[in-house]
Amino acid sequence: MKNRKRIGILTSGGDCPGLNAVIRAVVSHATLTYDWEVLGISYATQGLLEAKATTLKMHGLDLRGIDPLLSMGGTILGTINKGDTLAHTSEIIAGYQMLELDALIGIGGDGSLSILHNLAHQGNWNFIGVPKTIDNDVALTERSVGFDTAVNTITNALNSLTFTAASHDRVMIVEVMGRKAGHLALQAGIAGGADVILIPEIPYSIEGVCQHLAQLRDRSWRKFAIVVVAEGIEAVKGSADCDGLCQLTTKCGMGQYIADQISHCSAEKIETRVSVLGHIQRGGIPSALDRLVATAFGKTAVDLAAQGKYDQMVAWQNGQVVAVPLQEVMLQSPSPVDANGYLVPIARSLGIYVGNGFQFSQQSKPSCLKND
Amino acid sequence: MKNRKRIGILTSGGDCPGLNAVIRAVVSHATLTYDWEVLGISYATQGLLEAKATTLKMHGLDLRGIDPLLSMGGTILGTINKGDTLAHTSEIIAGYQMLELDALIGIGGDGSLSILHNLAHQGNWNFIGVPKTIDNDVALTERSVGFDTAVNTITNALNSLTFTAASHDRVMIVEVMGRKAGHLALQAGIAGGADVILIPEIPYSIEGVCQHLAQLRDRSWRKFAIVVVAEGIEAVKGSADCDGLCQLTTKCGMGQYIADQISHCSAEKIETRVSVLGHIQRGGIPSALDRLVATAFGKTAVDLAAQGKYDQMVAWQNGQVVAVPLQEVMLQSPSPVDANGYLVPIARSLGIYVGNGFQFSQQSKPSCLKND
Amino acid sequence: MKNRKRIGILTSGGDCPGLNAVIRAVVSHATLTYDWEVLGISYATQGLLEAKATTLKMHGLDLRGIDPLLSMGGTILGTINKGDTLAHTSEIIAGYQMLELDALIGIGGDGSLSILHNLAHQGNWNFIGVPKTIDNDVALTERSVGFDTAVNTITNALNSLTFTAASHDRVMIVEVMGRKAGHLALQAGIAGGADVILIPEIPYSIEGVCQHLAQLRDRSWRKFAIVVVAEGIEAVKGSADCDGLCQLTTKCGMGQYIADQISHCSAEKIETRVSVLGHIQRGGIPSALDRLVATAFGKTAVDLAAQGKYDQMVAWQNGQVVAVPLQEVMLQSPSPVDANGYLVPIARSLGIYVGNGFQFSQQSKPSCLKND
Amino acid sequence: MKNRKRIGILTSGGDCPGLNAVIRAVVSHATLTYDWEVLGISYATQGLLEAKATTLKMHGLDLRGIDPLLSMGGTILGTINKGDTLAHTSEIIAGYQMLELDALIGIGGDGSLSILHNLAHQGNWNFIGVPKTIDNDVALTERSVGFDTAVNTITNALNSLTFTAASHDRVMIVEVMGRKAGHLALQAGIAGGADVILIPEIPYSIEGVCQHLAQLRDRSWRKFAIVVVAEGIEAVKGSADCDGLCQLTTKCGMGQYIADQISHCSAEKIETRVSVLGHIQRGGIPSALDRLVATAFGKTAVDLAAQGKYDQMVAWQNGQVVAVPLQEVMLQSPSPVDANGYLVPIARSLGIYVGNGFQFSQQSKPSCLKND
Repeated sequence: MKNRKRIGILTSGGDCPGLNAVIRAVVSHATLTYDWEVLGISYATQGLLEAKATTLKMHGLDLRGIDPLLSMGGTILGTINKGDTLAHTSEIIAGYQMLELDALIGIGGDGSLSILHNLAHQGNWNFIGVPKTIDNDVALTERSVGFDTAVNTITNALNSLTFTAASHDRVMIVEVMGRKAGHLALQAGIAGGADVILIPEIPYSIEGVCQHLAQLRDRSWRKFAIVVVAEGIEAVKGSADCDGLCQLTTKCGMGQYIADQISHCSAEKIETRVSVLGHIQRGGIPSALDRLVATAFGKTAVDLAAQGKYDQMVAWQNGQVVAVPLQEVMLQSPSPVDANGYLVPIARSLGIYVGNGFQFSQQSKPSCLKND
Repeated sequence: MKNRKRIGILTSGGDCPGLNAVIRAVVSHATLTYDWEVLGISYATQGLLEAKATTLKMHGLDLRGIDPLLSMGGTILGTINKGDTLAHTSEIIAGYQMLELDALIGIGGDGSLSILHNLAHQGNWNFIGVPKTIDNDVALTERSVGFDTAVNTITNALNSLTFTAASHDRVMIVEVMGRKAGHLALQAGIAGGADVILIPEIPYSIEGVCQHLAQLRDRSWRKFAIVVVAEGIEAVKGSADCDGLCQLTTKCGMGQYIADQISHCSAEKIETRVSVLGHIQRGGIPSALDRLVATAFGKTAVDLAAQGKYDQMVAWQNGQVVAVPLQEVMLQSPSPVDANGYLVPIARSLGIYVGNGFQFSQQSKPSCLKND
Repeated sequence: MKNRKRIGILTSGGDCPGLNAVIRAVVSHATLTYDWEVLGISYATQGLLEAKATTLKMHGLDLRGIDPLLSMGGTILGTINKGDTLAHTSEIIAGYQMLELDALIGIGGDGSLSILHNLAHQGNWNFIGVPKTIDNDVALTERSVGFDTAVNTITNALNSLTFTAASHDRVMIVEVMGRKAGHLALQAGIAGGADVILIPEIPYSIEGVCQHLAQLRDRSWRKFAIVVVAEGIEAVKGSADCDGLCQLTTKCGMGQYIADQISHCSAEKIETRVSVLGHIQRGGIPSALDRLVATAFGKTAVDLAAQGKYDQMVAWQNGQVVAVPLQEVMLQSPSPVDANGYLVPIARSLGIYVGNGFQFSQQSKPSCLKND
Repeated sequence: MKNRKRIGILTSGGDCPGLNAVIRAVVSHATLTYDWEVLGISYATQGLLEAKATTLKMHGLDLRGIDPLLSMGGTILGTINKGDTLAHTSEIIAGYQMLELDALIGIGGDGSLSILHNLAHQGNWNFIGVPKTIDNDVALTERSVGFDTAVNTITNALNSLTFTAASHDRVMIVEVMGRKAGHLALQAGIAGGADVILIPEIPYSIEGVCQHLAQLRDRSWRKFAIVVVAEGIEAVKGSADCDGLCQLTTKCGMGQYIADQISHCSAEKIETRVSVLGHIQRGGIPSALDRLVATAFGKTAVDLAAQGKYDQMVAWQNGQVVAVPLQEVMLQSPSPVDANGYLVPIARSLGIYVGNGFQFSQQSKPSCLKND
């Protein structure tokens, strides 16, 4: 028996910096402003599946101890990437009732939010979504929690790698996250001084990359270059080895593929190195902006619960936090880079190659993605 | 005699991270896309005042050597805070002609942009403004170059200071920049976990601060606190010492004033320390977002020059770069924190004291500002 | 009644990064290797003074929860700078017995270690000292916990300030900690690219500084300079204002004094700015080396307790951790910069002014020190 | 014809942070103290091979423009990893004469220094070596330029990865540089909170790792772990796949191998992720200590040239810079981690698994090394 309103909070999908800052804001605002009880649910839907009295006690979140959450990466609630939600729909739905929740705040990317949205629909939950993803591909919000930190992490890595590339006159290929959307590669590439940026949304050709690297050498007297590759780009059909290689091992990625291609750009072999940034892109202390976005999202999600406005996602639009219907978000996600938008021309104005519109045939992506 | 279009670029007012990234974008886009000549003008209007053939040669900016500018703080062109523009208006105006400029891009805060706007009007210059200020108080743009880096710098400093404050159970007063606007204090205070944030736009009372610190101790079992003070807040009328102190020395600031007041909150003396962050707020490697904003601004300013759209300022609105009439910007700048906007309630939802609406009489500000 | 060996651990004096890493190593090694109980004592000798059964339970430290201590600044045990040890010697000594300690590990600088050494002598404690101080002036050890992080913090700050100084052609005076010893100013000044470094150990003259700044301008075509001032330097006798100023307010420091002097170096007024780094020098995430030193010290202190070797301090010598008699450490501390050692010539080989051996009369130091 | 003493300086082998700080110190000290001319030689021995009058002019290094070198990663002189020195010995030797050098300062790791030492012997050069390597395996010096920064880079990466590992309850395997020596893995692993550290010098067993991970879970209630793997460890003989895998692709490394083994530790599959830190370990802004070491080395190398003491290497011993005969350095390099030294027990005192002395048969290393 409870005598206060009780809301649950969970994190779902790949972790990123700023999740804990959302949790802190929710606990703080729900407690201080509304005097609600906040229940932290572990491991996304898994926590609902295993809802028990003991769990309940373990994760009661209050003001004590939440201060450090602001600057702490990851999520204290734990998270999972792929749950067995379909196989356990009814138990998960029942968990919401067992925990006697009045509302549930779920922090996730477009995949997780979609699953939670469906569960909420079936289970009649009072659900509010908070967008998080370093890929920044959730629709209808300019920013998702974690993106700004990831862009900074990659930008700093590019700066580091530039020194070593320059010292050795190498072409450094840097593979970054981004399976379906290239926001991360594009923004960090611009901020980090890349010479080439390859993203899933814009076709490229090996000839285009090679020509650009040759021009760069002619134009700027420098022999090194930085090539940023989103992990989700496709191989150019018919190109040698990588597809075969990937099938054999599932260990190589598109960074390695591009490096193999570039090394044969000219008669004189180009010296390349590949750096796969990997999980450090998910880590790190959240940036100030991510903390601000996370805090604003957490606070607004609680206000929506107070107003009884459900099936909504909090969103960042025009420097403000608003609520948008989850249904609409789902229809438009994942949201890709607009090849005709303002960022691609900006990249080109700096002399960056970001693809050339050359046709290349659509083929299935290599199954080399490994950074989830 | 020149045979290409020539644009000038200058930086004016206090420096900040990202200025060089604007310069790089302007040089790159003007050269690569339009094949213009770019002339870097040293020390703001001072460079126009002293325009000579030799100067011309010294600051011809081309693609070679601009790569490092992306991540370099400060401005390679130099800048000045307060020029003698009124005494030398005609010479400065003549400098534009002597340098045979077709257009001038000026990067500055609201003060500098206002001066340049007036000079442009009088001299019939083709002028385009780019907003920069760590105070973020230029109107009609969500972001100015330098703000995001400064927020991160302060946020990191607050995290550092929290550890030492907590170890010693002290109230740490952190004085940050912001004479007329509290954006910096408010956003960094939220992101950095402040307990109290005092900004020029919102009246506060010493009683309010004292009560809040006492509540905090009761509520969260912790004996330390972080108080962020924008340098431009006013002393409460009639309060002891500081005004006198300031007149004597011009060496103390409002951080010290608040510390003096807090130390007498209760019968038991509260241990305080003051940290004046000072010029490190202007320094540092620009954040990824500041580099992106700077690059987008520089590119767009060049496009405006290509289109012959002058008397405009580039601005960040809704995640896009647009042009706004400088005249309108000047009328609405400096742009303060909206006490009824969305950020102040967010701060309060975290239990932060940001002023209480108590009346306090308007008196002249102490002349203690020293961080320009 | 206890059935395992029990050791106490406390932190004393000003906090610094790495204290928590020592605590973690002590808890880990004592628990895993020796199966001892570890008792964390709060607020240095204050915790012994107030030793009670309740305290006992509160600070029992075990393996659970110590992981985050490695990278956490400050001290979870709390600390005090100036305790009333003389007035309460017998109660403090009794606290050791009340807590049924078999040994006590105390982490402190030369002042704290001296007090603890005396208490241990009077109370027959089994005491082992661990040196920590950002000043690095504890004798017989090359490194104390916290020093490396503080040097990095200042070095980074100098890099930041250089950009803003250069943009405005200013002489930036940076006041850093160091009352009795200039290790911090000297090492960070060398690493951070200072032009002038003033430390307590080496006399300087205003003429020397002025001449050097003039030479610098002639030699390197640059008009800005970075002057690092240890807070503990003395004013040159007979120089104007500052002494008076300080007596009036106790608010200014030696950085401001030097700035006032430099501004009158030449007929043309030199533009100066002062940056007092303050408590951020004590904060921050500990560097890798400080974590390594802290861990090695904590582990070795536990081993000394296992061997029954007391009245010792752990020390870093020749890249190894050794034990040295506390008595000898006390006799030789605080350990100043050796003006004839290897670092001062290194600074001079870079063209840095570090004092010139000019005589200046000894006078009492201004009472302006405020960064404890 | 030259009328001043002329020394050359070159960087050789893989780049690292701090090389430019050595160059700056050499130029500064040679110019200011001795009034020598300093000639920067590009791309290690390649620059000697191609010595020409034009090259001469291009790389004359003077005081102007060397300031930024202090904090700049990489090497402005460029470097190469594997030169054709054997095929071109006589031309390289002749280059020294063509450039009319009075002495040559070479910055390199144990491989490069060995080659230069031999060339110097054959060519009768006046040669002085400066040790640099992120592996820290040059003998007779406690520190080499670049090591401290690399340890900090890895430590920070481990902190980042810990958050994401903890959020997902994963075992995160982090592959770091270190082919022949595990100093980097060991020190960063201790500083970064690793649970397992595998280095070339200490045999390990998969069973040992598995048992340790199981104990860790029992002991500390946590389900994630951080495993640091030096790239140069050997596979346990007879273990499945990796050898085969490597032969097929040369794309996997020992991190992936260990992950494959760990995933089968228990009946319940353990979720692992691999992060190969790669070239970011060579990049980054040099730490304060690396700048200090680099500066001290550069200054001392110049002093040795002034004294006519050649065939020496500058070295860091007992917190001082000394000269040691290159011949002796060569005999004892590469210098491995001492399995019986003080650091391995320190790691074990924290509960870290660093190998167990189990025998494993020596087999040839897989040819998977790719981070040079």
